[in-house]
Amino acid sequence: MNLELALRMTEAAVKQAYREGATISVAVVDEGGNLVSFQRMEGAAISGPVLAPGKAYTAVALRLATSELAGLAVPGGELAGLPGGRYVCLGGGVPLWSGDGARERVVGGVGVSGGTIDQDVACAEAAESVWHTR
Amino acid sequence: MNLELALRMTEAAVKQAYREGATISVAVVDEGGNLVSFQRMEGAAISGPVLAPGKAYTAVALRLATSELAGLAVPGGELAGLPGGRYVCLGGGVPLWSGDGARERVVGGVGVSGGTIDQDVACAEAAESVWHTR
Amino acid sequence: MNLELALRMTEAAVKQAYREGATISVAVVDEGGNLVSFQRMEGAAISGPVLAPGKAYTAVALRLATSELAGLAVPGGELAGLPGGRYVCLGGGVPLWSGDGARERVVGGVGVSGGTIDQDVACAEAAESVWHTR
Amino acid sequence: MNLELALRMTEAAVKQAYREGATISVAVVDEGGNLVSFQRMEGAAISGPVLAPGKAYTAVALRLATSELAGLAVPGGELAGLPGGRYVCLGGGVPLWSGDGARERVVGGVGVSGGTIDQDVACAEAAESVWHTR
Repeated sequence: MNLELALRMTEAAVKQAYREGATISVAVVDEGGNLVSFQRMEGAAISGPVLAPGKAYTAVALRLATSELAGLAVPGGELAGLPGGRYVCLGGGVPLWSGDGARERVVGGVGVSGGTIDQDVACAEAAESVWHTR
Repeated sequence: MNLELALRMTEAAVKQAYREGATISVAVVDEGGNLVSFQRMEGAAISGPVLAPGKAYTAVALRLATSELAGLAVPGGELAGLPGGRYVCLGGGVPLWSGDGARERVVGGVGVSGGTIDQDVACAEAAESVWHTR
Repeated sequence: MNLELALRMTEAAVKQAYREGATISVAVVDEGGNLVSFQRMEGAAISGPVLAPGKAYTAVALRLATSELAGLAVPGGELAGLPGGRYVCLGGGVPLWSGDGARERVVGGVGVSGGTIDQDVACAEAAESVWHTR
Repeated sequence: MNLELALRMTEAAVKQAYREGATISVAVVDEGGNLVSFQRMEGAAISGPVLAPGKAYTAVALRLATSELAGLAVPGGELAGLPGGRYVCLGGGVPLWSGDGARERVVGGVGVSGGTIDQDVACAEAAESVWHTR
């Protein structure tokens, strides 16, 4: 992950937000889960600075899109015991993979917050598509 | 949000608490989620200083009455994965809106804790009605 | 401590702030260190919601005016190892004592933040004087 | 504060970092202390995501450039007892003022971390100069 690519991903997410009529925050983290970039659109909720980096971190930490966690982080589910703090198990976080086969690994993540969960997911996937065509 | 209005809202919530036979804490936060005023009635539980500001913060951060979160923050619900910390997904938090149409935005929130959820909601709504007639 | 008395103490602190030309936040906590009331004056800094309750808590927890901590919480001092979190070792916090002789105990505290340290101390002492004449 | 202005301020800080030969992180927060934008340059330390927002928050919360805290937050100094958590008392945080005279208030802050303190201060001031000519 690097800043230039993070900003291009962020731009794609924000463009998708305009299409969706949503106001969002977008976070990109590196393979260490540490923030590379963050942008909160004019008028986006103050929850964004916590939830968007949290979704990106969670996606990297668990190597799963956070939208897939809905069925896992419930009581009795496989991830029911996740600690609070940095984990945010809401759709809108996507891990970013690099390499092939056995060398494939997560090298970053994007998190979006501020719209409905569906809008957040769509915006995160718009960012992810920039990643795939980098 | 300003202190004078926050105190009038708080007074309305406390009056409603007397009607309900409840002993409550009332918090008012500004658009940044930062506390403007807090009052804990004689005899109200020590959870109030955490839960009432938490509900007010949550209402501002998510732009929803926290009573609406009941159906969303349950296991499997859309907001089931909210992090701990400042988020309190119990009824009794209300966002305060200002402006019209596209310029409408959340400029503060009120949170009530100490009674039953129904009582907390009623007290928060009493505060909110002061906001609407400000 | 009770709400009615806390509000009278707060009023005295705010009046002193007007005299000082300061904009402050005032917190009052009970003997358990739990918040009873909080008010942030129009225009007072957003640090108030953290620092004022922190000073009040610290005054109760250590049974000392926080202005007396300056010489104790320094490296090599008696209180150098205080944990972070709720402790705020800045002048402006005052413990409130009740009872006589062996039965004397701390039953609450007041904390003020937003002015200079001298202003905060003066405002906290104005609140304390209400306590002494209760 | 808005995102467009925050990004222009960030760009100015990063340009200054290139001049200084430093690799930095830049954070911009609004009047509530909530993050608006963050960028970490390629190769900048992982402390940036904590320290840069922390400096920006501290500048807003205390209404002082964090470089001015050096003399106050030392042992025995007036602000020696500041709590940990969000407060970062290292040079590189600057409050952003708006309005005149009695209506002047802090409406945001910028924080820079990653270089020497002198470099961080220079980069934060480059961002601040964009604010002054906005």
